[in-house]
Amino acid sequence: MRIVVVGGNAAGLSAAVRARRFDSSAEILVLERGQRISWGACGLPYYIEGQVKELDDLVLSTPESFSEERNVTIRTGASVTAIHHTRRELLLKGGEPIPYDKLILATGAKPNTSGVDGWNQTQVFGLHTLEDAARLKDFLTQRQPKRAVVIGTGYIGIEAAEALRAQGLHVTLLTQNSEILGRTDPEFVEPIVAHLNRCRVDVRFNTRVRIIDVGSVEGIPCDLVVLANGQRPNAELAAEAGIEIGRTGAIRVNDRMETSVWGIYAAGDCAETNHLVTNSPVWIPLGTTANKMGRCAGANAGGAREVFPGVTGTSIVRVCGLSVGMTGLSESQARREGFQPAVMRIESRDKPRYFRGRPTTVELVADKNTRRLLGGVVMGDDGVAGRINVIATALTARLRVEDFQQLDLAYAPPFAPTWDPLLSAAHQLIKLLH
Amino acid sequence: MRIVVVGGNAAGLSAAVRARRFDSSAEILVLERGQRISWGACGLPYYIEGQVKELDDLVLSTPESFSEERNVTIRTGASVTAIHHTRRELLLKGGEPIPYDKLILATGAKPNTSGVDGWNQTQVFGLHTLEDAARLKDFLTQRQPKRAVVIGTGYIGIEAAEALRAQGLHVTLLTQNSEILGRTDPEFVEPIVAHLNRCRVDVRFNTRVRIIDVGSVEGIPCDLVVLANGQRPNAELAAEAGIEIGRTGAIRVNDRMETSVWGIYAAGDCAETNHLVTNSPVWIPLGTTANKMGRCAGANAGGAREVFPGVTGTSIVRVCGLSVGMTGLSESQARREGFQPAVMRIESRDKPRYFRGRPTTVELVADKNTRRLLGGVVMGDDGVAGRINVIATALTARLRVEDFQQLDLAYAPPFAPTWDPLLSAAHQLIKLLH
Repeated sequence: MRIVVVGGNAAGLSAAVRARRFDSSAEILVLERGQRISWGACGLPYYIEGQVKELDDLVLSTPESFSEERNVTIRTGASVTAIHHTRRELLLKGGEPIPYDKLILATGAKPNTSGVDGWNQTQVFGLHTLEDAARLKDFLTQRQPKRAVVIGTGYIGIEAAEALRAQGLHVTLLTQNSEILGRTDPEFVEPIVAHLNRCRVDVRFNTRVRIIDVGSVEGIPCDLVVLANGQRPNAELAAEAGIEIGRTGAIRVNDRMETSVWGIYAAGDCAETNHLVTNSPVWIPLGTTANKMGRCAGANAGGAREVFPGVTGTSIVRVCGLSVGMTGLSESQARREGFQPAVMRIESRDKPRYFRGRPTTVELVADKNTRRLLGGVVMGDDGVAGRINVIATALTARLRVEDFQQLDLAYAPPFAPTWDPLLSAAHQLIKLLH
Repeated sequence: MRIVVVGGNAAGLSAAVRARRFDSSAEILVLERGQRISWGACGLPYYIEGQVKELDDLVLSTPESFSEERNVTIRTGASVTAIHHTRRELLLKGGEPIPYDKLILATGAKPNTSGVDGWNQTQVFGLHTLEDAARLKDFLTQRQPKRAVVIGTGYIGIEAAEALRAQGLHVTLLTQNSEILGRTDPEFVEPIVAHLNRCRVDVRFNTRVRIIDVGSVEGIPCDLVVLANGQRPNAELAAEAGIEIGRTGAIRVNDRMETSVWGIYAAGDCAETNHLVTNSPVWIPLGTTANKMGRCAGANAGGAREVFPGVTGTSIVRVCGLSVGMTGLSESQARREGFQPAVMRIESRDKPRYFRGRPTTVELVADKNTRRLLGGVVMGDDGVAGRINVIATALTARLRVEDFQQLDLAYAPPFAPTWDPLLSAAHQLIKLLH
């Protein structure tokens, strides 16, 4: 038995480790296009910011140590150009054939540069690879730029803006639409924009960038540009091999991470997953989901029978010190999915006022018909991750708002007010549902 | 309709407000024995510590403002001595009769001083009322004591020790058994004791205090003593009126907070509640539960039909800077309740190492037969409240470990490692269950 994994980061390596656990005799080979494996892409903005001192701090494992400790063969610099599944064979760039019995695709995602001319100039940066980060850090050190434009208001754009502000640059954040973190509702967007402005990040909506000039972007003078205009799944290899691609553009998989072709699995940022609230396929490329999908794909390729049920779409981002967590559906997403959403948004505090509690906002969305919780947002200073995780757990368990309001959440003055903001929001939401 | 509430703090006032919401015409009267209402007992240690500047900061409402805003009559200094339910009448100290149609008992709990002689000396303090805290603070300011003995290792004892250390006193924490926060398992007790010792709090187990002398307790010289030797429910009034008392010593109620006597409700620290993991009555007197029970009792007394399903026994305490959260059953509790517990305890970090992640310990307990999660402990620096709340939510939803390990918890480097410690613990626990 020969299990081949394409891609040597979160999903691919999780898959390899897990396949080994269930099949001690198989030959397991990981093919990685780049020179490094197992690095934390989510840490790149914090290297730019200065929190992460060395890029190597983001590298969790080397090919040598991984091979040795895990009994898995790693080949770096191995770019797969084609899958010939009838022959159970991959082709590497250069023509070398690689036979396999089972194949796991963990080819990741790539930054979206379409429609922007001039993205390959020296003062333009992505923030997708270690090389991107190294090049940007060098540029900051050597060229001492003063003004940056960041194109894109997703996680990477927001985190890049925070990092460049921390480095003392003047930052303008541009987006072609009116979204922040994929949302357009003013109750969500406005407080974040206000906070960014307080941190001296300018935000320009509805600014479509077609050309990046040497000294400016859309008339905004700048010394450097970060292009973080979204991502796309690396699904071409799969598509060309006749593997079904979902409507999201990512590889379609079932809950065992099997693609439409028997013997080929897909996991991580190249693949779709199931949304637990809607029970529909979604493409939400995040590191922690990639790990879970990889584990599942690897286990099944290794002969186990495991299931990855899906995600609630939980994410969290620090926006110049403001923590913003989201999970499940927004009101407009819920409406599009056929629910009848009721929304409650409250302003509360993360701790008692006498314990220097800071403002925190909680938004809960529920379905009027079933009274099921559908989603939530938490914004504030302390405790945002914990509170969004409670909502994510409640969504997974399909709790109704009535169940949610009775949750036995921890209370002591250093940690929370007597009525946790989550429970206060639920009380108010229930009034709407009556 | 006349609804009378006995007790003017968390449960009693929640009940009064909630009764008013459902019955706009009833006369609602709250009888409070003391001179103040609506104060946060959980904040008292932080007044001693200095975090809370004024005792009044802990008082949320005065009788006058509450009466005015809520259309509820408050009588302070009104001590109820008997319930004559056949006449629907209470008797106040002094003999005044108070008629009622519906009665809500929210008489709270009292500190346990039994078996200790000398507890009423001037250098001995409880930490149960605003007066206790004021007297202790004055003593600290005026007498500048150097050495304190704290008797009791529950929340109040631990928090008192932390507060007195912050005030610069040398502190010895005594207990007659070998428990910390109600637990004896060394995996829980030892790290907490080690941390207390690092913070220069001495801990003496198995030290039964029978007499508090003027300058010493059980041979330990000291200038002041805090007696925090547990609490007991104030259930005598109910018992004398023939209301059923549960095996825990607190007033028995159903999930509508009805006592065994029709028309009399009980809520808060004087009453039992249901444990959601075991489905048995428990007595866990905590402020946040008191509020929930009070709401439910008040709603039902006001003509609604609400249910309070119970608690998972969630609590959190700061132990000289170490956060300790618990919910559900410990291994030994689980065994006593007839489960076959498997326990996993892991050491992890609350954030990535490159983001200065600090050590965090997670313990999960599950039932081998049903694979249901039964309880958990989280100890560490950051994120303890959030993580214990996720476990509490999972217990409420009766999640199995397999479901729990797939939770879509928030990940970004400023907040958590890629594998949240909760998920890592679940992975390891599953291996034990195979």
